[in-house]
Amino acid sequence: MKITALIMAGGRGERFWPRSRKNLPKQFLSLTDDGKTLIQLTVERILPLVDMEDIYISTNQDYRPLVSEQLPDIPPENILCEPVGRNTAPCVGLGAIYAAKKYEDALMIVLPSDHMVKYNRMFVSTLKDACDIAAKDDNLVTIGIAPDYPETGYGYIKFNPDSIKGRGYEVAHFAEKPSLELAKDYVSSDEYLWNSGMFIWKASSILKRFETLMPDTYEGLITIKDAIRTDEETSVLEKVFPSFSSISIDYGIMEKSKNIYTVPGTFGWDDVGSWIAVERTKKTNEFGNIVDGNVITINTADCIIQGQKKLIATVGVNDLVIVDTDDATLICDKSCTADIKKVLENLKVCNRNEYL
Amino acid sequence: MKITALIMAGGRGERFWPRSRKNLPKQFLSLTDDGKTLIQLTVERILPLVDMEDIYISTNQDYRPLVSEQLPDIPPENILCEPVGRNTAPCVGLGAIYAAKKYEDALMIVLPSDHMVKYNRMFVSTLKDACDIAAKDDNLVTIGIAPDYPETGYGYIKFNPDSIKGRGYEVAHFAEKPSLELAKDYVSSDEYLWNSGMFIWKASSILKRFETLMPDTYEGLITIKDAIRTDEETSVLEKVFPSFSSISIDYGIMEKSKNIYTVPGTFGWDDVGSWIAVERTKKTNEFGNIVDGNVITINTADCIIQGQKKLIATVGVNDLVIVDTDDATLICDKSCTADIKKVLENLKVCNRNEYL
Repeated sequence: MKITALIMAGGRGERFWPRSRKNLPKQFLSLTDDGKTLIQLTVERILPLVDMEDIYISTNQDYRPLVSEQLPDIPPENILCEPVGRNTAPCVGLGAIYAAKKYEDALMIVLPSDHMVKYNRMFVSTLKDACDIAAKDDNLVTIGIAPDYPETGYGYIKFNPDSIKGRGYEVAHFAEKPSLELAKDYVSSDEYLWNSGMFIWKASSILKRFETLMPDTYEGLITIKDAIRTDEETSVLEKVFPSFSSISIDYGIMEKSKNIYTVPGTFGWDDVGSWIAVERTKKTNEFGNIVDGNVITINTADCIIQGQKKLIATVGVNDLVIVDTDDATLICDKSCTADIKKVLENLKVCNRNEYL
Repeated sequence: MKITALIMAGGRGERFWPRSRKNLPKQFLSLTDDGKTLIQLTVERILPLVDMEDIYISTNQDYRPLVSEQLPDIPPENILCEPVGRNTAPCVGLGAIYAAKKYEDALMIVLPSDHMVKYNRMFVSTLKDACDIAAKDDNLVTIGIAPDYPETGYGYIKFNPDSIKGRGYEVAHFAEKPSLELAKDYVSSDEYLWNSGMFIWKASSILKRFETLMPDTYEGLITIKDAIRTDEETSVLEKVFPSFSSISIDYGIMEKSKNIYTVPGTFGWDDVGSWIAVERTKKTNEFGNIVDGNVITINTADCIIQGQKKLIATVGVNDLVIVDTDDATLICDKSCTADIKKVLENLKVCNRNEYL
């Protein structure tokens, strides 16, 4: 069965400020030494499984030029621009009808555009395993990540270790972001995986779920599907899409469906959640520093320094994230990267949109 | 007796890098909230005692435009440009012959251009006391500062507490920068003062000392004196001055002379030796930060942040000195400001003169 992919690239994350901006979100940044952007790496990673012309990028009108520029080999008609953001369920639905319009039926791999994977061949192998399960019986498959530590910022997948299905397991239920205590229980139980937000199913399987669980959205999706490759394609999309409920695919479909399976992945997954992640994606020097750009470090250790042309000189500092851009410089303790959003809140309150 | 002043402004200090540069040394920077530069404040401070036309600025050709710009009321002929740097003894000698050329005899106040004084009226009062002593018997007077703590970066003055002279004391000897142990002894003995580098004497008194202790320099100075206000003034200066030995006034004259007195000053003296000094010259906010320019601070305490137009955002940091300029940004732990010179060494080694 033909395999298609939907890469979700509409996010406007703020955690990589000041490098990431409203007009240049994280998925379009390079955070690795090879200079490739996260979305470029995401596409590259699935090419062993999916033909370029079967990769769809869902984004919005603002980011279309960035997608075209960074992914020139993606056919322009595969760049799906949501007229408004409506969370992941409508986004997945839109991808599904494009795949279903092109092929009588097709497998569909749904991926975030801003995650990292260390072991690409294991990743592809895991996706193949997931495809095997998804190809049968309208199963929905999600990739689960074996947790390294009790992270409280991710959702978890409880699986049933006795219900083996190919290389996967039946999902018992999805668990929301837990307290630290609960997260520790999850990790020690060996029956929970991190919910990575990567899904595999047939376009027809997921559309059936929309039909039952989100019938209004389903109806709208079919209206859009009928307009694909007609003169009304854009106008129908712009009329219908905003009427969809803003809801995540997890909450709208996955948590309410049967026949959900998870394939555990051990391919060095990283959601690149903050500047700290750069320590995992780039090489550190002998002092534990990660240094880019025009930088001089004196007695400086364990810092992430992202300079550009301007000289950055550090003296006697440790554990800092320093990010320089043309109009803004961030100096942040590594333990406080979650508070970068407070800078953005401050900027919003003061209406200083040029920095957002 | 007429009082003249010589303000020494030829220094090329590196401690305020990246704000201070070879072409903009510390004395020409503003480090106070009033926006006035250190040399402007130095001149302003002595105006109750000295007429503007009797203030001489010794500097070099590179800084003449800065002096003229920042001190437009100083007569241009009072800006004395040393053809080469030869430390403070030749500098003081040059000032002395200009004063001696203008007046049959005159008192001469010698001041660094890059120090701060908190209590200006007490400063003037101390200088007056020093002038009273210097006006008699060819006495040489140095201003001593009652030490707050055992600083190892200053020279000390040992005075004889029983030999009171007006408001001053006879100097027993000068002591070089001490070890910490020795500095502690000095401070606890109550017979030592910091050597501030501020001197008061008659032009004739100091020239007599040159005649005896530095006769070659004296001879050259007289040659220059004869050329003042002639067509040969510049050419003679450029020919003679480079032949002078490079030696400090302390080492060349003060330590070898008799009739040396010190007047203790308690006027809030500060040699503004590093960025840390800004904590004493500018107001801190409620979080202990000193913030200038376009800055957002989140969970930031006890930092010195000197921004400009570019946005600087700090998150979760303490005790940092952050200085932004057009082409370079410094991020330095407060405890490591002495290592800023290592950045400059690195730049010199790499021949990156544009940053020096």
